[in-house]
This record gives sequence, structure tokens and C-alpha cells, in this order.
Amino acid sequence: MPTDQLEELATPAAVVELAVMEANIARVAEYSRKQSLALRPHIKTHKSIEIARRQLASGSSGLTCATVHEAEVMSSVCDDILLAYPPVGPQRAKRVAALAERVRMTVALDSRTAAQLMADAARERGVEVGILAEMDVGMRRTGVSDIDSLVELCAAVAELPALRFEGIAIYPGHVREHVTLQDEKIAALQRTLDGALDALRGRGLETRVVSGGSTPMLFRSHEIKGLTEIRPGTYVYNDRATALAGACTMEQCALTVLATVVSTSVAGQAVIDAGTKALGREPLPGGDGEGYGSVVEHPEVVVARMSEEHGMLDLTRTGWRPRVGERVRIVPNHVCIVVHLNDVVFGARGDQVVESWRVDARGRGQVFAHA
Amino acid sequence: MPTDQLEELATPAAVVELAVMEANIARVAEYSRKQSLALRPHIKTHKSIEIARRQLASGSSGLTCATVHEAEVMSSVCDDILLAYPPVGPQRAKRVAALAERVRMTVALDSRTAAQLMADAARERGVEVGILAEMDVGMRRTGVSDIDSLVELCAAVAELPALRFEGIAIYPGHVREHVTLQDEKIAALQRTLDGALDALRGRGLETRVVSGGSTPMLFRSHEIKGLTEIRPGTYVYNDRATALAGACTMEQCALTVLATVVSTSVAGQAVIDAGTKALGREPLPGGDGEGYGSVVEHPEVVVARMSEEHGMLDLTRTGWRPRVGERVRIVPNHVCIVVHLNDVVFGARGDQVVESWRVDARGRGQVFAHA
Repeated sequence: MPTDQLEELATPAAVVELAVMEANIARVAEYSRKQSLALRPHIKTHKSIEIARRQLASGSSGLTCATVHEAEVMSSVCDDILLAYPPVGPQRAKRVAALAERVRMTVALDSRTAAQLMADAARERGVEVGILAEMDVGMRRTGVSDIDSLVELCAAVAELPALRFEGIAIYPGHVREHVTLQDEKIAALQRTLDGALDALRGRGLETRVVSGGSTPMLFRSHEIKGLTEIRPGTYVYNDRATALAGACTMEQCALTVLATVVSTSVAGQAVIDAGTKALGREPLPGGDGEGYGSVVEHPEVVVARMSEEHGMLDLTRTGWRPRVGERVRIVPNHVCIVVHLNDVVFGARGDQVVESWRVDARGRGQVFAHA
Repeated sequence: MPTDQLEELATPAAVVELAVMEANIARVAEYSRKQSLALRPHIKTHKSIEIARRQLASGSSGLTCATVHEAEVMSSVCDDILLAYPPVGPQRAKRVAALAERVRMTVALDSRTAAQLMADAARERGVEVGILAEMDVGMRRTGVSDIDSLVELCAAVAELPALRFEGIAIYPGHVREHVTLQDEKIAALQRTLDGALDALRGRGLETRVVSGGSTPMLFRSHEIKGLTEIRPGTYVYNDRATALAGACTMEQCALTVLATVVSTSVAGQAVIDAGTKALGREPLPGGDGEGYGSVVEHPEVVVARMSEEHGMLDLTRTGWRPRVGERVRIVPNHVCIVVHLNDVVFGARGDQVVESWRVDARGRGQVFAHA
């Protein structure tokens, strides 16, 4: 039952206010242009060819992907892709090498093993793949932890055939705008980065690219001396966590989950049809607030509990008493997860659904094993 | 790059040990047969036509679904479907009515508004839809909370045209096997149920069906007097939460997420390629344990932290030191969420992938709004 009316759309549905998204894309493009930073948006947030196209049209230098499948899908609209993920596993390096026949591929990695795998696959395919060595600057996820290991890795990469040493990648995911001592965290990051760049220079390794930047600290990227490129993802849609971290306003959250109140039987709550399978179960980091999302029309109301297809709105701090059938829009805590749960995103202007687009790179591109 | 070898499969991948799943299906079919309980598996766990077919072949009386899209997909293999979800929203009731032209449809609901919506849609379509009135027995999610309201709702349903009053539905999701006082919770549930059935009888309303039963208390269903039907979902694959609740063993967990170690750069941890987008972020309920999943080969190791595509294995309580490229299998906390994140599930016997099946009802069946 197709419809152009937002009020007739089946729920739960991911709906983007197009004007807000367009302003988000323009704002970051303008910032990176002004600061002379290359902008390489991370498409893991939207996973849609159509949105990547708009980011590229706004002046991005290329795209960032997390999975090989994302890179494969995006290669149809972009000829310069960074896979910000170690090319480890029985198929990753081979698929990257296959892509490198058609587009300029760069891969971030943090181990000699990964570099060797990538070199072997690239050589076998007869292609060259760019490499960024990933350095941990405090998030403690991936990235080599000390400068000596970084220099060793970069030197190894520079010597491996079929690889092109490009520089280093950092991910300052631990630096959030609202956090006390953020200035100190950025200063510490700068010291680490300066030390790394000095050491690489001392070894005769030229770092053409220093890639970093997440959405929460996006607009402070220019403070990091030596950075050449930023890879924000979330900014295109934004979300409650980003807003509560101070990196956008709630009004700049373009994507909401449209939901319907399906039950008010239990006192003190209303149940909507958006649960874990529509919103994800992503808490706000660092004690920024409660719940898994908040109601646009009643910001004091949060999704306090969930099961798979039920979201329990806590009505204890509001005079609002929704009726069964009433519709609400939820700003999710973490929009990248919400998108990953959807096949289609709807684009709205006012009350009208004016377009929709597939979450093209949502899956894993899995191939069936047998006939 | 298709393969029949488990070790060549691209990761992360959802892999089912077929022998374990087959035993899970047989065990529950045998239990319900022995206890003379109708078995109506909830397909929200697997969402696959192929698995539903096997559940039906094992002696199920029909299927349970949570979303209309699930019901639409399952109507291709089953002619008796319960939608255990209020038919509220601009399209739900209409789509249920459309389905009722082809299969026997029953709907659980907890409000007069929902009953009226369903009656209107059914009458417009010229079909009859069965109704179970949902009663809250302690979970505080949906379901009418007191017996007077239940009787009123059932009486209203019985009088509405195009609806067929069938009985009541309960969801004892708050009763978990390991919980202290579980006996008391079951006794309380029995008192509520007895009171409800008495009151309905007093009003002249015949309850042909009393539907209940979740996986955690599955094998105690026969203790609830008056119950006619159970709707377990998770049992087909099982998961870590179910095992830690005592309702299955870890060996009875059929589905694991196959993952590859992609980084060991940060001391004390190994990073796998299964993060929130592969495992979900589902904590164990009730303090049953830590982490978001555990490693089959090293049960003392859990996925302690995650980001979207990274899972951080905590190595502080193990002597195991995995190398980059090593593969592990993760038993997820909550398998229903993992399945919802996948398009394809692979079926293995030993080291061989011998079949695979689509997660057919994963999406929302969303229809594009425009040309």
C-alpha cells in the first residue's frame, strides 16, 4: 500500500527530513573546505548510494567504508575509497585487491600480518593498494600503541611489494565535545601525533596523509596540527548521542524513527511499535542521559525499556497521555545502528514523503555456499 | 567467492549447527506432544521460511508472528497464523484482513481501539479474524492489567462483527528458570489466570484458547493449568541468555557468529570483526553474566566491548593469545537480534557448509512511496 503521505506510512519507518540532511552535508563540506581538510565521509552511517552521491557532489575527496561489501557497493559511485578496517580474513584482502582494479583503494591496518595479506593479494591481482598505518591515540580499539611499533609497521609497508605507503590513520573516538578535559585529550593526541610524525620523518618515511576525525569532535579537527583528512560519518543524519555530546543540536538530527502507539494498557507508559529491532539498544555514552531515544514532540519522554518489537515510553515525567494509534517520531541514540536495521529510508519534506532510498550496503554481500 | 568450507566463509557470518537445531526442534515438539499443548512456534527468532517448514513438519499447529510482514512471508508455508501484536496503525489491520482471505488469522490485542480497527478492516474485506485478548501477567509490557478490563474487552470483541473471540494470550516473559522465587511467580500467574478464566466463564464467554509460553520457562508450561498452547521462539537456535537462565545448555546453542581476529595491537584484548552490527548490544538479563557473547573455543573469554564492526575480546582471564587471522565462534547473548541483523544463515555439519537459507521476513516489507 504505497503512499506519499507521511501519516499513512507503515511503522516503524526511518524517515529523514531532507532539508535537515542537506544542511548537515553542506555545513561539513563548508567547514572542511574552509579548513583545507580533505573530507572523506564514512558511509557506514547511511550505507546508501544515493546519499554518498550527494556527499561527493558537496566536495568530498572520496569515501570511507568499514566493510568490504560497503566498498564494493560504493565503488559504483566513487573511484577513491578508504577501507578503514584491517584486511584480515579469508576473503577481505582478495576482495580489496579485486576492487583496486577499478578504483583507487587505500586500506588502514595495524599489523604486519595484515600488511602481508594485503600485499600478497594485491601482487596476485597485479594491482597496487595504498596503506595507512593505524595508530591508537587513546580509544584502545585498534591501532598500534607505541611509536616504535608504528615506525616498524610503516617501514615494513614501504618495503612490501604492491603496497603504497600513504601515511597514518587515527580515530579519536574517545574525544567527545562535552567531556571535561577534552582540551587535555586533544593536547595529548597532538603530542602523540607530533611524536609519530617526527619519528617517521627521522626514518625517511613520508606521510602524505594523516587521516582522522569523528563526528563528536568534527568541528575541532582544524586544531589538530598535521591532520590532512577527516572521516566523519554520523554528521549526515546526526543522533541523540551526538546532540547530547554538543556536536549538533536536536533540530539537526535529520533521521527519526516514525512509530505508532500500540498499547497504553499498563499504567505510566505507552508502548510504541519501535523496539530493539527498530532502534537498537544503544545507551548514551558517558552518562549523557537515559533511555534509547526521545520523542520529538515530547522531548521529556524517552524510550525507557524495549523488547524486540515494543518500545516502552516512560510517561512519569510528562502530562502527555497518548492514545492508541497516535504517531510519534523518535530521535534514536545511535543512528548508524538504526540505518543498519532498515532496508529503506524515506525522505520527507513537511508531511510528504518525496523520495526513498535503499540501504544498499546494509548486508554482508554473502554468497551462498552451494547450488 | 562461494565455498562449502566453513573455514573459507567470509566473516562475520551466522552459522547454525544443523544437528543441534534439529534436536532443539524435536525436543520441544516431543514435550508439547507429551503434555498435550498445542505448539505454535514464534518465528521472530529465525524469520526463515525453511526453518518454519521444519517446525511445522515436527508437529506444530501453526505459527506465531510479531510483524505483519512476518505473517505475510509465512503465509506461503502456513495456513494458521497468530499475530501476537496489536493490529494498530494505518496499515496493520488492513494487511491482516488481506491475509485472512488466504489463511486462518488470529490476532492478540489489548484495547477496544485495536479491536475496533481489526473489526472494521475485516468487515471491509469480508473476512473473519480470530481474537485473543492479551492479559498482563507480570511483565508489564502489553496486556490488560486487571480482570474487569479483560472481561470488558472480551465481551466487546465477542460482540463486534467480523471478529471471532478465541480466548486469551499471556506472555510470561518475566518468569525465568533461574530466578529465585520462580515457583512463586508461576503460582501468582496461575492465580491471575484462574481468576480471569472464572470471570470470563461467569460472563458466558468461552475461552477455547489460552496461549502462553516463552523459551525460558518452556519446560514448565505443563504446570500452568488451563494453558492450551505455547509460543516459544528462541528454542530453535537458543542463545547464551537462555543457557545462563538454565533453559538450555551451551551445547544446545545451535547458532554462533563466526568471526575473525583482526587486531591484537592493544594489550589485553583481541579484536574480532563482529561488533554491534553483527551481535547486537544485548546485555544478559538479571546479572547473569558479563559481555555480549562468549567464545565457544574459550568459554572464559567474552566480548567485553564493541563498536559497530569491532568486538573486543577480554583476554585478562585467559592464557589464550589468539593471532591475527584466527577464527572464533561467538555464542551471542540474544539470538533473535543476531538473526535480524543477517540476510543469510549458513547451516553446517562439521567443517562443511551444507546449506544456507534467507532470513526471509527480516525487513518490514516496506513499499516505496513513489515511482
